[in-house]
Amino acid sequence: MVLQSWINRVTLFLRKGAALLLMIDFSTNPTAYKHWKLSFEDRVATLAMDVREDGGLVPGYDLKLNSYDLGVDIELYDAIQRLRFEHPEIGTVVITSAKERVFCSGANITMLGKSSHAHKVNFCKFTNETRNSIEDATENSGQTYICAINGTAAGGGYELALATDHIILIDDGSSAVSLPEVPLLAVLPGTGGLTRVVDKRHVRRDHADVFCTLTEGMRGKRSVSWKLVDEIVPRSKLDDTVRERATEFANKSDRPANAKGIKLTPLNRTISDDAVTYDHVSLQFDRDLGMVKINISAPDETPPSDVAAIHAQGVAFWPMAIARELDDAILHLRANETEIGTWVFTTSGDANLVEAADAALLDNTADWFVREVTLFLKRVFKRIDVTSRSIITLIEPGSCFAGSLLELVLAADRSYMLAGTFEGDNRPEATVRPGTINFGPLPMCNGITRLETRFLSEPEKIEDIRAETGNDIDAETAEDLGLVTFAPDDIDWEDEVRLAIEERASFSPDSLTGMEASLRFAGPETLETKIFGRLSAWQNWIFQRPNAVGDEGALKRFGTGLKADFDNNRV
Amino acid sequence: MVLQSWINRVTLFLRKGAALLLMIDFSTNPTAYKHWKLSFEDRVATLAMDVREDGGLVPGYDLKLNSYDLGVDIELYDAIQRLRFEHPEIGTVVITSAKERVFCSGANITMLGKSSHAHKVNFCKFTNETRNSIEDATENSGQTYICAINGTAAGGGYELALATDHIILIDDGSSAVSLPEVPLLAVLPGTGGLTRVVDKRHVRRDHADVFCTLTEGMRGKRSVSWKLVDEIVPRSKLDDTVRERATEFANKSDRPANAKGIKLTPLNRTISDDAVTYDHVSLQFDRDLGMVKINISAPDETPPSDVAAIHAQGVAFWPMAIARELDDAILHLRANETEIGTWVFTTSGDANLVEAADAALLDNTADWFVREVTLFLKRVFKRIDVTSRSIITLIEPGSCFAGSLLELVLAADRSYMLAGTFEGDNRPEATVRPGTINFGPLPMCNGITRLETRFLSEPEKIEDIRAETGNDIDAETAEDLGLVTFAPDDIDWEDEVRLAIEERASFSPDSLTGMEASLRFAGPETLETKIFGRLSAWQNWIFQRPNAVGDEGALKRFGTGLKADFDNNRV
Repeated sequence: MVLQSWINRVTLFLRKGAALLLMIDFSTNPTAYKHWKLSFEDRVATLAMDVREDGGLVPGYDLKLNSYDLGVDIELYDAIQRLRFEHPEIGTVVITSAKERVFCSGANITMLGKSSHAHKVNFCKFTNETRNSIEDATENSGQTYICAINGTAAGGGYELALATDHIILIDDGSSAVSLPEVPLLAVLPGTGGLTRVVDKRHVRRDHADVFCTLTEGMRGKRSVSWKLVDEIVPRSKLDDTVRERATEFANKSDRPANAKGIKLTPLNRTISDDAVTYDHVSLQFDRDLGMVKINISAPDETPPSDVAAIHAQGVAFWPMAIARELDDAILHLRANETEIGTWVFTTSGDANLVEAADAALLDNTADWFVREVTLFLKRVFKRIDVTSRSIITLIEPGSCFAGSLLELVLAADRSYMLAGTFEGDNRPEATVRPGTINFGPLPMCNGITRLETRFLSEPEKIEDIRAETGNDIDAETAEDLGLVTFAPDDIDWEDEVRLAIEERASFSPDSLTGMEASLRFAGPETLETKIFGRLSAWQNWIFQRPNAVGDEGALKRFGTGLKADFDNNRV
Repeated sequence: MVLQSWINRVTLFLRKGAALLLMIDFSTNPTAYKHWKLSFEDRVATLAMDVREDGGLVPGYDLKLNSYDLGVDIELYDAIQRLRFEHPEIGTVVITSAKERVFCSGANITMLGKSSHAHKVNFCKFTNETRNSIEDATENSGQTYICAINGTAAGGGYELALATDHIILIDDGSSAVSLPEVPLLAVLPGTGGLTRVVDKRHVRRDHADVFCTLTEGMRGKRSVSWKLVDEIVPRSKLDDTVRERATEFANKSDRPANAKGIKLTPLNRTISDDAVTYDHVSLQFDRDLGMVKINISAPDETPPSDVAAIHAQGVAFWPMAIARELDDAILHLRANETEIGTWVFTTSGDANLVEAADAALLDNTADWFVREVTLFLKRVFKRIDVTSRSIITLIEPGSCFAGSLLELVLAADRSYMLAGTFEGDNRPEATVRPGTINFGPLPMCNGITRLETRFLSEPEKIEDIRAETGNDIDAETAEDLGLVTFAPDDIDWEDEVRLAIEERASFSPDSLTGMEASLRFAGPETLETKIFGRLSAWQNWIFQRPNAVGDEGALKRFGTGLKADFDNNRV
């Protein structure tokens, strides 16, 4: 209910049946920010949280004490993206608060209490991905995030700090870090906090247990000796210490100090009744089947191959363009099209041009912008893996599943490739073409490639595919190599594909979500898979439990003065 | 409701308030089996499922088509334990069905539809642990489980097969393996099926997706080429092939062909109003605090040190006795005492005798029985890790937390150790004593020891503790070494401990479950942690979703002729 009545920062659009619905828009820009202040000094950027109390995405709650809702996080995500692309000179980003005595008090509880289950889950997923992208910048972009906690950091506030690489806590006798969700709200810290405490910062499990049950949190020397923060400093020295640390990290950065950034201009997007269209990505809905076709088209012309020309193209550089468009499309579909349970990926255009675009990335890895584009592509494909929608990829004549776009085949829950051609269609039969980019630069969040995940116990099959790098592979061979699930001919194609999509629409979306989340991530586990698998699954469960969300549950009663009434049975 | 009205295989006992309650008893023996037939031929045992339709643990459902409830699984667990201990000669166990044309159709759906959420979750946990113990026998006991699927194996039936090391499927044109939970019931295969398909058998994720949505499952050559089974054989050759494979595996076993088994005589257990008492383990309830004290006492006399004497003691050998008693106590508490949210572990007795018992295990690892006892201890401690109760360990004067019992400190969510002595108590101050057994033989289900999990990024701390092997460590030193959470003196002790327990009782049990499950398993992930973390958490979530358990949900409508009515929103 709340989700569908959100009226802030929204675009109206018409849908079949002429119902007026409201849309959450994930695109923004710094001039439109309500909640963050971005400033720059030499190679250090400061991202200061200053949440406007009356600036919530929906009416019904005040964003007090730097608490946040999805709108605040949409701005944060935008800022992180711009810091990477528009600011090559920035080596360190300091996250802090522009408010006195409060750093951030986490996700807004009233908002959570009023939100639908689907919105809570989707909100947590996006905030998790945003924090993962902070860690990705630190680890892979030469842009290290550090955190200056200049007041109370509670719940999601401390979880935001946990996503950074160095946490400085003001030592003023009152400011503390805390994860009070369990004792106060009967839910979990929903943005990776539990996992990061024990698995990233290696806080001892018994210390973590104590910390996560302490409403008031922890401060002073114990917060350092328990590894919850990296250092504490008195108020008088906070600014100097932060500047010093920020400079230290910036000096280690390999980002160019004097390069020109790539401006993230607004996307060219058209939303109509049954379609969303970007320059290279288009969505076509079939609401009866609960399905959207997501088509990605190849470059229209040969992409540039040298760094200067790539920079000159900027956001128009094809890999960058499709990453941005697909990113926006995914977020749009997740938030605004929850009844569309099946995403069907297709491609169209010239595979040679896709291969040339991939080559532009692979041949210029030393360039900061090319590196950023590749990392962005990686993050966008990762979003697909953790999306709770069934993913089906169709490979037909006219498609261009080469290299980077082949990842859409490997990311699918299943794929269908037409063997031969359709009657009356004089285009050549469909092929797929492995590329060097499939063997490393685009890992899943389990830390290995989609091919490695696919053939966990059969590395020789990966070598068979590597031997075909650059070759056009027909349906029968693709099936033999294990690249596609089924390769029906034109007689069976329509029935098989239609039945698969209809069948998907007939299943419980919840059981599909649990099944897909379990089957997609074989092999090693990482911080990210633990957050999206274990932690999110437990949180989703708790978000359904009466002790949290029932009328007498803690989330519902928070702020009412009434204590929650718990069913004490353990399950 | 169902859980508390179970009337089969139960013992009546009185509880405070004089309410009559019914108890699920996990102890049984082959003469009492209703559902399994155990037979022996040379070094091969056959465990044939033959579920009695009217033999359900509770009235209200018929166990048709070899479907199972907890009662069937209690017998299976008992059989597995006896095969390990009473039958040293057995190198291979063949799981099959005694019925015509059906192997096993999985967990009984009517039973699931009528069960409480807590019962469903607890049932799945026990069945998961039982299947893990099958894999433990195969991997570590020289007792390989194989499966002869002589008819349809659906859902939990196929999951039982997945726990074995070699799956033979009859090729009769109709018998198939299937995981139809998603399409038929809107839940997940709840006993590790999804995880084992992709992570144990390495079925390709897209094949797994297809398989898990096929109501009718898969048979014939495709079931082999997709790795769902290891071989298919015509009906006429099934018996010969099974015998041949069983003999092959048995011939590789290192178990002694002519040793005498250790008889698993009934436990000496007394259940009263507020206590459960075994020979070495005793439970004392404080129902107001939602707490049980679980005390384990040291051996009364010096344990035997040589193999012959250990065998002569049999089930009375102290490590074996406490493993059995603790195992039964854990299962009893989980199933019958769901409102007891906090388990407080204590010990009493002479640490030297505990150390001597550990030495008896460590000095005789070549002996099959000693190996089994050590593996059993490992499995029992693992049960604690995955139990959804808060675990607190108290270390006081008179305790004996040495070696194996020190694991109870390391398994705790937090621990308290008294510094000094209590006024008027002339016993010496409490100590803990690390032993060699803490550094390897008792890993958690993440595959590493509790000490390794505790000090993930600080291996040097493990070496500091190893240097203290055999030494009595006082509270202050134990705190410095990171072995205990807090070391209050006698002035603070009572308040600190009481507050911790009271506080625990005031929190939502659900959020505690999610928090504890997230904090206990830092570090690597295994098949087991994936099953208990990711898969179980998703299943628990789905077990709360209206699409499964609502009045119009699939579990409720199964068998009624009505189709489930789904809310198609993805979350």
